[in-house]
Amino acid sequence: MVSSLRLPALTSLISPSFTRRSTVSLRRRLHLRPPLAAGFSAQSAASSPTETEDRVDSKKSGRVQDRGSTDRVITPRSQDFNAWYIDVIANAELADYGPVRGTMVIRPYGYAMWEAIQDYLNVKFKETGHSNMYFPQFIPYSFIEKEASHVEGFSPELALVTIGGGKELEEKLVVRPTSETIVNHMFTQWIHSYRDLPLMINQWANVTRWEMRTKPFVRTLEFLWQEGHTAHATLEEAEKEALQMIDVYTKFAYEQAAIPVIAGRKSKVETFAGADKTYTIEAMMGDRKALQAGTSHNLGQNFSRAFGTQFTDENGLRQHVWQTSWAISTRFVGGIIMTHGDDAGLMLPPRIAPIQVVIVPIWKKVDEKTGVLDAASSVAETLKNAGLKVKLDDTDQRTPGWKFNFWEMKGVPLRIEIGPRDVSSGSVVISRRDIPGKQGKVFGISMEPSILEAYVKDRLDEIQSSLLQRAISFRDSNIVDVSSYEELKEAISLGKWARGPWSASDADELRIKEETGATIRCFPFEQPQGTKACLMTGKPADEVAIFAKSY
Amino acid sequence: MVSSLRLPALTSLISPSFTRRSTVSLRRRLHLRPPLAAGFSAQSAASSPTETEDRVDSKKSGRVQDRGSTDRVITPRSQDFNAWYIDVIANAELADYGPVRGTMVIRPYGYAMWEAIQDYLNVKFKETGHSNMYFPQFIPYSFIEKEASHVEGFSPELALVTIGGGKELEEKLVVRPTSETIVNHMFTQWIHSYRDLPLMINQWANVTRWEMRTKPFVRTLEFLWQEGHTAHATLEEAEKEALQMIDVYTKFAYEQAAIPVIAGRKSKVETFAGADKTYTIEAMMGDRKALQAGTSHNLGQNFSRAFGTQFTDENGLRQHVWQTSWAISTRFVGGIIMTHGDDAGLMLPPRIAPIQVVIVPIWKKVDEKTGVLDAASSVAETLKNAGLKVKLDDTDQRTPGWKFNFWEMKGVPLRIEIGPRDVSSGSVVISRRDIPGKQGKVFGISMEPSILEAYVKDRLDEIQSSLLQRAISFRDSNIVDVSSYEELKEAISLGKWARGPWSASDADELRIKEETGATIRCFPFEQPQGTKACLMTGKPADEVAIFAKSY
Repeated sequence: MVSSLRLPALTSLISPSFTRRSTVSLRRRLHLRPPLAAGFSAQSAASSPTETEDRVDSKKSGRVQDRGSTDRVITPRSQDFNAWYIDVIANAELADYGPVRGTMVIRPYGYAMWEAIQDYLNVKFKETGHSNMYFPQFIPYSFIEKEASHVEGFSPELALVTIGGGKELEEKLVVRPTSETIVNHMFTQWIHSYRDLPLMINQWANVTRWEMRTKPFVRTLEFLWQEGHTAHATLEEAEKEALQMIDVYTKFAYEQAAIPVIAGRKSKVETFAGADKTYTIEAMMGDRKALQAGTSHNLGQNFSRAFGTQFTDENGLRQHVWQTSWAISTRFVGGIIMTHGDDAGLMLPPRIAPIQVVIVPIWKKVDEKTGVLDAASSVAETLKNAGLKVKLDDTDQRTPGWKFNFWEMKGVPLRIEIGPRDVSSGSVVISRRDIPGKQGKVFGISMEPSILEAYVKDRLDEIQSSLLQRAISFRDSNIVDVSSYEELKEAISLGKWARGPWSASDADELRIKEETGATIRCFPFEQPQGTKACLMTGKPADEVAIFAKSY
Repeated sequence: MVSSLRLPALTSLISPSFTRRSTVSLRRRLHLRPPLAAGFSAQSAASSPTETEDRVDSKKSGRVQDRGSTDRVITPRSQDFNAWYIDVIANAELADYGPVRGTMVIRPYGYAMWEAIQDYLNVKFKETGHSNMYFPQFIPYSFIEKEASHVEGFSPELALVTIGGGKELEEKLVVRPTSETIVNHMFTQWIHSYRDLPLMINQWANVTRWEMRTKPFVRTLEFLWQEGHTAHATLEEAEKEALQMIDVYTKFAYEQAAIPVIAGRKSKVETFAGADKTYTIEAMMGDRKALQAGTSHNLGQNFSRAFGTQFTDENGLRQHVWQTSWAISTRFVGGIIMTHGDDAGLMLPPRIAPIQVVIVPIWKKVDEKTGVLDAASSVAETLKNAGLKVKLDDTDQRTPGWKFNFWEMKGVPLRIEIGPRDVSSGSVVISRRDIPGKQGKVFGISMEPSILEAYVKDRLDEIQSSLLQRAISFRDSNIVDVSSYEELKEAISLGKWARGPWSASDADELRIKEETGATIRCFPFEQPQGTKACLMTGKPADEVAIFAKSY
């Protein structure tokens, strides 16, 4: 599939305008740059086969170019991280801009990443005792008002349905920004006795928050997520559940997405509107800004008191249930892009990649074509049967060089090249996305199915852990231990994360935000030993906090 | 999980009121019956174990009763089909009523049926070349107005967002009732040349239609569905695609849901708003009303002309694309309930059932308990490892008799009973949900894993095809061939479907609807041979049509 994408630069996305009448008018208003990725759809000159020996090294300083075709341009990551991000999303066809301001169309390649996230988490949720279900997205406005801090947190961002079936509604309906209120309304009807607890459910759904500053995947008016909701008989059980789920997210981030998140507790200031405690996983993006990649809330009895969600305990007494909620969204896709990508485009961890191996057949003479394509198909079949996600790019409308660049830009972890000589020798050439140029290229891997399958799986495992290790090194070299506000300011001004003891006030925390742009991302679960003095006040502090600028 | 469900009777659901302020006020207004299924949550007396020999035959004339516990009452199906339907949904915990009129909460057991539908179709869609993606649900109002018959068909049912982030919007936003308009808006940007075609995508999403008469699963304000959208270079390709997808739906209905749908073409009057042709699968429910269970539309160039979706063909000429769209929704869950259920409750085809086998351990003396539970766990493990969906109901808060009734009501295809004597003899007792009483019960099936697994899988296959055969017989005995309007009227008045030659006018078709309540469900693909005379006009007719009352 081919496209011309018209995602605006970041500066355009943070326009406070509301809806638009048409794409054209919005584009005019936002001074958009010309369509990106025109090269994908250009009716380029017929491609000429490349010699097997003429393998193209696609790594060029910050530019992915097609030989003899229209240029596709990706802004170098080092030059302008946000422009790079938008370019990658456009060129790799991950998403496009919806007709309503701040909305996003998730295209098949981007959606397949979300499906990989869903497939993994859905199994883990069920293993940990949760059932999927579905709540309506329309919530009576009065529900939102029932929990005081919840309404305060969400009312500025609501989309309201006021007309249905041609008539003005008696009560405005909120398009769900999150479902705690409607969940509690139903839980109140379903929960009667301690025997009904714990009640543990999850839903995969779309949610709407009327955000002013939007950015594809990271913050959109509508996004996709899962939201888990549980009710328990005791505070301890709820706390255990909230911690269990942030642990599920943490494992997912490390093991699947190769993102070394830091898990911890949010400060009071940053806690979810309606929660007693919020746990979070914080990821360091390639520009060293933090991304809150998943949260798990201990809601205490805040919603059960607001909605009268009670149960009769074993002693016959009526008690309010203790609750949790937890969510991961399509924002995570943005996190994967911004953690691993480089100047050439996307770089996907094998366990998330929609295509794990791309096979590029290479032939020069017509009489070579059949043999090469047969071998390529056979290799593709072998790897598919081994459970791998394989793409055989056998079009003859593009040169092998173009294909190398294209699939590199799409972040495919492994590329297999097969030319006439490879067919003769019964072997293939394999290149790793994460190691550029010749260093990442190995010749003469046998086509023999069992050998090839084992080799490919080993390399994919290596890439998976190599991406994680690289991200860990990057993260650790960009966290600075600080013991004073001066040191914190310096670290933040250098674009780094600052970690230091903290026991100061909410007001001090807000002052740091105003003065440096950094917020407390979390009090990490992993804490250093020993006595500590608050970086701000010098008073004793129990914990270190991590401060950073964030998305 | 235990609950008291409060779904209103059908008569309450067809109230034209809009939103409600609280459940309580709606219930008051709609004169709801008292909560159903109170027995599920009652803190009933501790159950006493039943003797192995005292196996409970749960088939009672129209009533499922618990021995020694609060009654659960399901209205007999023969007495009041609609009340039975609502009772089954409540008692089997398939769904509950949302706080906003006409909305539905899909509970875990009902949602698991939807997941079974998704799992099958998602694979078939990918096999037939479609990719999943996601479009925003907010559509500028102006989009809906672009295709003349589309706006006429949908504008009475729209939910409109008029306020976002606290401000009145410049342009109202439609909460998607279907996505053809926004899909075409994006297709217009993505499609340039014939090389970009066919473009074949699908999305799983929620949609909103402001229906006045609602009924759980069958017609709700918000529902879940998949909608496929494709664009092609020629009319022929689009037609082939539309037919391919109705064929996928037909196979799904027969092979998975055991519903012998009749596939065919809609009359002009019943064609989708914006389509040239609509293909449909029509299912006969237990009350002999028709349920439109899935549709596939050949959209022609209607939307491509309205949205300017053009491509450059191989000769360099600009052409409008030819399109299709096709959908199946959570309505299908209602179709499964109404096709197979009986007085005892749900009866689920094994391939859709969230639980295929329930295991009920039975013990009398405390010293028997361990042996029985060990054997039951081992049997459960064997069957789970064989890929079956198994529930071991080992709670000691309920009697075996209660459990038999409960899981029968939940429609579980097979029940395995294990008592002390079974443990001694190394065998189990197996009962079929589709054959009531002793006839459906077989004693002495060996616990030996390979024997048991093979036996259980064979029985599940038998049940699957038996449900289909039963539904086919029921369908065929309730379709009457008619050759005159008089005969048609008689058939319809008897509650049957009428099949007869038709070449009369749209006005005649509408007259039949007014006079009999029946509509043309479809011109079936399977047509009788020979010349035919229109049942209404006596003039030559090419095809027979099927008339029926419908949901």
